[in-house]
Amino acid sequence: MSLLAVGTVAFDAIETPFGKTDKIVGGAATYICLSASYFTKKINLVSVVGEDFPQESIGMLQQHGVNTAGLQVKMGEKTFFWSGKYHNDMNSRDTLDTQLNVLETFDPVIPEAYQDCEFLMLGNLVPAVQRKVIMSLKNRPKLIVMDTMNFWMDIAMEELVKTIAMVDVLTINDAEARQLSGEYSLVKAAQKILTMGPKYLIIKKGEHGALLFNNKQVFFAPALPLEDVFDPTGAGDTFAGGFIGYLANTKDISFDNMKRAIIFGSAMASFCVEKFGTERIVNLGKEELDHRIQEFVNLVQFDISLV
Amino acid sequence: MSLLAVGTVAFDAIETPFGKTDKIVGGAATYICLSASYFTKKINLVSVVGEDFPQESIGMLQQHGVNTAGLQVKMGEKTFFWSGKYHNDMNSRDTLDTQLNVLETFDPVIPEAYQDCEFLMLGNLVPAVQRKVIMSLKNRPKLIVMDTMNFWMDIAMEELVKTIAMVDVLTINDAEARQLSGEYSLVKAAQKILTMGPKYLIIKKGEHGALLFNNKQVFFAPALPLEDVFDPTGAGDTFAGGFIGYLANTKDISFDNMKRAIIFGSAMASFCVEKFGTERIVNLGKEELDHRIQEFVNLVQFDISLV
Repeated sequence: MSLLAVGTVAFDAIETPFGKTDKIVGGAATYICLSASYFTKKINLVSVVGEDFPQESIGMLQQHGVNTAGLQVKMGEKTFFWSGKYHNDMNSRDTLDTQLNVLETFDPVIPEAYQDCEFLMLGNLVPAVQRKVIMSLKNRPKLIVMDTMNFWMDIAMEELVKTIAMVDVLTINDAEARQLSGEYSLVKAAQKILTMGPKYLIIKKGEHGALLFNNKQVFFAPALPLEDVFDPTGAGDTFAGGFIGYLANTKDISFDNMKRAIIFGSAMASFCVEKFGTERIVNLGKEELDHRIQEFVNLVQFDISLV
Repeated sequence: MSLLAVGTVAFDAIETPFGKTDKIVGGAATYICLSASYFTKKINLVSVVGEDFPQESIGMLQQHGVNTAGLQVKMGEKTFFWSGKYHNDMNSRDTLDTQLNVLETFDPVIPEAYQDCEFLMLGNLVPAVQRKVIMSLKNRPKLIVMDTMNFWMDIAMEELVKTIAMVDVLTINDAEARQLSGEYSLVKAAQKILTMGPKYLIIKKGEHGALLFNNKQVFFAPALPLEDVFDPTGAGDTFAGGFIGYLANTKDISFDNMKRAIIFGSAMASFCVEKFGTERIVNLGKEELDHRIQEFVNLVQFDISLV
C-alpha cells in the first residue's frame, strides 16, 4: 500500500522583498513528496520533466524515499518553468513568466507497481489530467485529496466540477472557495462545495490558517506567527504533503485524525516559508519538527471546563 | 473590588449589506459593560451622554448590574453620534457622519465609590482622557486594559504613546499594530510594542481571530466561522468586555487565564455580530453561551502526543 503523488515538477524563479533566486527546483509534486516523506516512506511520483532537469534533483527525491519510476523525462524538451514576484505583504504575487513546455502534452501514465495506491494526492494540474489519474487506478484509493486553483475555475469550470465530484478531500484557498461557490461567507461556501462531491473541504487562508469542513464539523488550525515569511512558494503543497503523508502513515481517515494531519501539514508549511523554495524542507530533523508541533499545541490549546 | 469601564456611550446609525438602522444605542462602553455583565456584576461606568439619551437605555445598563453613577448627563447637549456604512466584505467601512457633541468637552470624573477599582477597561477615547482616568485612581488597579485606534496614531501619537506606557494590556487590530510599530510582521510588531510599556498585547484580526502576546508566549484564538456576519459594529468592544469581565470575575491574571478570557471574549463577539448593534448581546442565556464556548473548544482542540 502506498501514497501516490501526481503534480508538477518544475523550475521556479522567485523574487520576494528579501531577495531573488535563479532557476530553482519547485513544482507542486516536489513539495508534496518532500513534505510527505517526513511521515511515510512509500511515496510514488507521477510527473514529467524535460531533459534539462538535473539528475541530482531526481536523486534528492529518491533519497527521501520517493519512487520516481513514474517521472517521465522527455528528451529534447524543457521542464515546466514559472517565475513570479511577491508583493510586500507576501499575500499576493505577479506571475512574470510561465513556460508550460513538457506540461503542454503531459499524459500521466501509472506504472503497474503503483497500482497498490491507497492514498492519492492530486497536486494542482489540468482537471482532466487529474481525472485521468483517478480513472487509471484499478482500485479506488482509500482517500483521494485534490488541490486546484482559480485558473481552472476561469477557463475549465465544467471539467473541474467533474473532477471535484470524484474526490474525497478538496483543498483550495479562501478566494477560490468563494469563486467556486459564489458565496462570500466561507461557512456557506463550504456547505455548497460539500454538495459537489467531496466529503471534506480544506480552505487554506495562508497566514490566517486553514479550515477543515465536513457536513457536521469544522476545525480550524492557525498558521504559526513567524517573524518573517521569506518565500511563500510551495507552502500550500507542503501543507498538502504533510497532511496526506500523516494520514497515509496512520491509515486513519477519521475527522479527529484529519485534525492532527492538518496540524502536521501546517507545521511543515511553516518551515517551508522560512527559506527560498524547498531549501528549508529538504533536510529537517525530527527534533525540530517535534518542537514545531509543540509550538502549535502551545499556540492554541486552552483549558476551559464548563460548569 | 470592581471593574471600571470608561468609554463612549453613543448613538449609531449603521448600514450593512443586510439592512440599515435608525439611531440606535451604541458606544464602546455600552458594549464593554453589556459583555462584561455576563461574567461579573460589579461594573462601574464612567461616560457622558446628552439629554437626548433615553432613560430606558440607562435602565437597561442598570439591569445588567452596571452602576451608572459615573455617567454624566449633560443638559442642553446632544449625545455623541456616529454613522457608518460597511462594504460587502464587512471588513472595511466608511464613516458617513461623526458628531462629537458631549464628547468634545468630556472630562471624566471618578465617583468616590469607584475607587475600589481592581480592573480598569479603557475603551477607545482621546488618549489624554484615558490617562486622566488612570491618574484619578488613588490605587493602581490590578490590571489596566486599553483599547485605542489608528485615528489617535494619526493625530495624537505622542499622547498615545504616553498613555500606552501606563497600561498592562493593549488591544489593537492588525493594521494598527503595524502602524504603531512600523513593522509588517505581527511577531516583530508585538516585540516592539511590548517594549513600549504593556506586558500583554492583543492583536485583533476580526474574522481571522485574535493573538495574545507577552514577552515569552503567544496564544491564538480563532473567530468562530459564521454563516453571516450581520453587523460588526461593537465586536471589538464586546470582545474586550468579555475578556476583562472574565478576568475580573476569576481575579486571575496569569497567561493561562488570559487565554480563557480571550476565548470568552471571542464567544461574546461572535454573538455581537449576529444582529444589529447590541441587540444580540442584551439578552443572552447561560446555555447558549456555554454552547458557544463548546463550539470554540471543538473548533480548535486536537490531540497529538509526541513520541
